[in-house]
Amino acid sequence: MEKKRGFILWLTGLSGAGKSTLSHGLESVLKERGISVEVLDGDIVRTNLSQGLSFSKEDRDTNVYRVGFVANLLSRNQVGVIVSLISPYRDVRNKLRETTTNFIEVYVNASLEVCEARDVKGLYLKARSGEIKGFTGIDDPYEEPMNPDIVCYTSVETIEESIAKVIGFLTEQNYLTDA
Amino acid sequence: MEKKRGFILWLTGLSGAGKSTLSHGLESVLKERGISVEVLDGDIVRTNLSQGLSFSKEDRDTNVYRVGFVANLLSRNQVGVIVSLISPYRDVRNKLRETTTNFIEVYVNASLEVCEARDVKGLYLKARSGEIKGFTGIDDPYEEPMNPDIVCYTSVETIEESIAKVIGFLTEQNYLTDA
Repeated sequence: MEKKRGFILWLTGLSGAGKSTLSHGLESVLKERGISVEVLDGDIVRTNLSQGLSFSKEDRDTNVYRVGFVANLLSRNQVGVIVSLISPYRDVRNKLRETTTNFIEVYVNASLEVCEARDVKGLYLKARSGEIKGFTGIDDPYEEPMNPDIVCYTSVETIEESIAKVIGFLTEQNYLTDA
Repeated sequence: MEKKRGFILWLTGLSGAGKSTLSHGLESVLKERGISVEVLDGDIVRTNLSQGLSFSKEDRDTNVYRVGFVANLLSRNQVGVIVSLISPYRDVRNKLRETTTNFIEVYVNASLEVCEARDVKGLYLKARSGEIKGFTGIDDPYEEPMNPDIVCYTSVETIEESIAKVIGFLTEQNYLTDA
């Protein structure tokens, strides 16, 4: 009997790039396969782990490290974790790769133009008008991954194609061997 | 093959009551038995989850709920969690019992006199002199558990006796069935 392997699928990308959609799609597929999965997305995290933190660089870093800490507790105990967070800074993501168990960087890649045109939550409009300050992609940087493990181009791929890419990676890397 | 069961051993009690000693003793014994265990104690939590929170009632509650959230993520994924936190307020602990998976309240019971006489970290002295405000047992209440699952009287029991009590409870309640 092989031991189950935990992992952290760390979905990074602009607001509106499709991280949540992809994370919930992946959650369903993985659960159907009998994998223990937990999703940590921005809303869950802000409610349960990071009340009171602002969107300053320092507080964003704290938030991302905190989620990384929790994801690592799960991953090292054979749970599959899907994190869905803008996590805009490269140095923080690289630090997490070094300090966590089975960190897999998934770049959910859609251009700023596409994300802004979608503007599902109306946040880009508020950022352009100055109502929101420090918004990633507008007046705060998004630092693209240099060597992501997986890139999903959500403006040209279907959700099924993106999911298949991630599942393919997990399979190749032997994360999905059944216990 | 039986499925492993996660659990949360929630060690509550005054500063100096022996929560950390008991948690590390339990960690060793459980790991020897092949159980996946994570310890969440005050220091780990303040460093990784709750930087910036004060010791006000509100911030303490936030801290305790946050630890409960993380403990629950682990427990519901078949991990044994040992939480070691003063967690002085009864309503918060009762709320956690209702909202988490396999919550086991362990009252680490030593009298204030005993804890203050030990004063391992010198905190009682500071609290008495007014250097620290809102210190549990001195100028902030410790609300004893009304119906704890386990009580360890650390000033009269040996550490081995306290550990045996907890392990006995876990065994009786079928938490330790091997996978």
